[in-house]
Amino acid sequence: MQKQSDNGTSPVRVALDAMGGDHGPVETVKGAVLAAKSANVEMILVGDQGPVEAELAKYDTNGLAIRLVPSVDKIRDDEHPLQAMRSKPNASVVVATRLVKSGDADVIVSMGSTGGSMASAVLTLGLMQGLERPCLGGPFLGLAPNTVLVDIGSNLDSRPGLLLNFASLGVTWARTYMGIDNPRVALLSVGAESTKGNRQVQESHRVFEGSHLNFVGNVEGMDFFTEKAEVIICDGFVGNILIKFTEGLGAAFAAFAKKRLATSLDDTTIDEFAAELVQLTNRTRTNGGPLFGVNGPVILGHGSSGADEILAAVNTSIRYVHLGMVDIMRQDLARMNQTPNETSGTGAGR
Amino acid sequence: MQKQSDNGTSPVRVALDAMGGDHGPVETVKGAVLAAKSANVEMILVGDQGPVEAELAKYDTNGLAIRLVPSVDKIRDDEHPLQAMRSKPNASVVVATRLVKSGDADVIVSMGSTGGSMASAVLTLGLMQGLERPCLGGPFLGLAPNTVLVDIGSNLDSRPGLLLNFASLGVTWARTYMGIDNPRVALLSVGAESTKGNRQVQESHRVFEGSHLNFVGNVEGMDFFTEKAEVIICDGFVGNILIKFTEGLGAAFAAFAKKRLATSLDDTTIDEFAAELVQLTNRTRTNGGPLFGVNGPVILGHGSSGADEILAAVNTSIRYVHLGMVDIMRQDLARMNQTPNETSGTGAGR
Repeated sequence: MQKQSDNGTSPVRVALDAMGGDHGPVETVKGAVLAAKSANVEMILVGDQGPVEAELAKYDTNGLAIRLVPSVDKIRDDEHPLQAMRSKPNASVVVATRLVKSGDADVIVSMGSTGGSMASAVLTLGLMQGLERPCLGGPFLGLAPNTVLVDIGSNLDSRPGLLLNFASLGVTWARTYMGIDNPRVALLSVGAESTKGNRQVQESHRVFEGSHLNFVGNVEGMDFFTEKAEVIICDGFVGNILIKFTEGLGAAFAAFAKKRLATSLDDTTIDEFAAELVQLTNRTRTNGGPLFGVNGPVILGHGSSGADEILAAVNTSIRYVHLGMVDIMRQDLARMNQTPNETSGTGAGR
Repeated sequence: MQKQSDNGTSPVRVALDAMGGDHGPVETVKGAVLAAKSANVEMILVGDQGPVEAELAKYDTNGLAIRLVPSVDKIRDDEHPLQAMRSKPNASVVVATRLVKSGDADVIVSMGSTGGSMASAVLTLGLMQGLERPCLGGPFLGLAPNTVLVDIGSNLDSRPGLLLNFASLGVTWARTYMGIDNPRVALLSVGAESTKGNRQVQESHRVFEGSHLNFVGNVEGMDFFTEKAEVIICDGFVGNILIKFTEGLGAAFAAFAKKRLATSLDDTTIDEFAAELVQLTNRTRTNGGPLFGVNGPVILGHGSSGADEILAAVNTSIRYVHLGMVDIMRQDLARMNQTPNETSGTGAGR
């Protein structure tokens, strides 16, 4: 299903959820046009026919590899994902995911409801063996570009065995996508000692120690900046709070800097600096982040994305496909869970 | 035990753990001298006699209300607090806490081991009725000066009933110390809906709803900056990760700003700006933060504090004593737990 050997020679077919996000289809179509112009890609816009065609008409798409696959309606942030999938079986994200399943697209990119995209991915593409949930992760901080955080939002009260599987996915990503040799894995906690942490972390510590991951123990909140580990694992509850907090803090910093430096710097310099501060706190969302653990490439982006961020997410998706990330993750996961000495497979933990 | 009526007329007697922190007794003594010069205070330096006297000799303390109470050794960060209290019964923080217990001091201020200070406070002063643990809290972000976060580090896997009691303490602080009328209380979670959150938050949501607090539901990570609630409650695991993360992020931001603006601003302006960025992420630690729930005023500060931060913590302690915070907190807590309609006292929760 995945392209792996044709490194960049044939175009990657990207199914873009054209209705997704706060600004679809206006910004999604614009982003698709940018992508079609700049990358070796075939953009498949999945969305309500009328609105998408109206947006497309704004551009000269002559010679560009862009086509439309019609869908009906979209899954909204405030909808229950599974109910929405049932009541809107041809919503944009569902149709786009089906294109990956049927082999008519290589990857899906969506800025829409995270819950909707995840539900669609799990039900349409299925989970990798040994997983009961997918997870989200990636280098979420521009200020810590080599530090991957998993899980950032989908799974609450995760068992240690599930966290271990998430760690495997994060390690594969760090090694293959980011080029980090033998990435160090750590659990996010309140102290470095193995006895420090809540029950979940203490139990996970034992499970991780028994695994073949390059586990270096616990790290603390400041250790995103101390390069003690490349893959930091936490429960989705903590991860979700952290990314949203960071995003809020970045915006607050930017606002402070703008006000504070108003008399010292010219407007352009201030605006650029403030924009950088925001970007530095928000990397996964800026570049799109993969949904780990499903049997197909899925890249999710921030709902507020504009055309530039959509282009960045498409570029992430192209690289993800070229590297054959899904197959490698599946192999690494199976290997970890099949190792005879493994004390802590999927079934382990509390 | 607490001064309440003599608002500022007689000096507050502050027992300062002179050996505490990374820079005791050098910075603690310096801070005590600053405090004695600037505030209506009697500084009681508790520490190893020789080293403290040597530091004191560096200053002209003529006419200043500073005296020394000798102690032996200190509790270090890497020691187990309870074991250290047993093996060092006259460690500085223990002797200083005893001065509060015996009525010879009005408040203790320590920059030493948080665990050591807490153990000493709990065992020497005792816990308020209904509590099984103390907690830490305060406005931890300079960028969100009216938002109090409780608990920031002492209690992991807290029961909902304990979190409710912590919320009561935080509310009293926000109302009395910060002057916020009827503070709004929220639970930190991954979504605003009552169904969003891990098990602990979902159970706590029901307990908080049944209380007489001004409970406004769940808030998310970005809501430290959106003014939806003045008192945000989380498990100490999350709170500890958040404050350490924030501190690391503030330092990283400052380093980035210094580098990024090196050619646009003069050195002084950059340095001031960078220092402000650090301060904005670190308010409780800069000004000292109260230990809530013990039967006496205890103000803790950051281990890295210099004389200025120690002075700020002393000033916090003076105000804490003048307001009679401990008595008010005790009364509010008792009232909440004795209300007949209360569905969720200390014994409640999982």
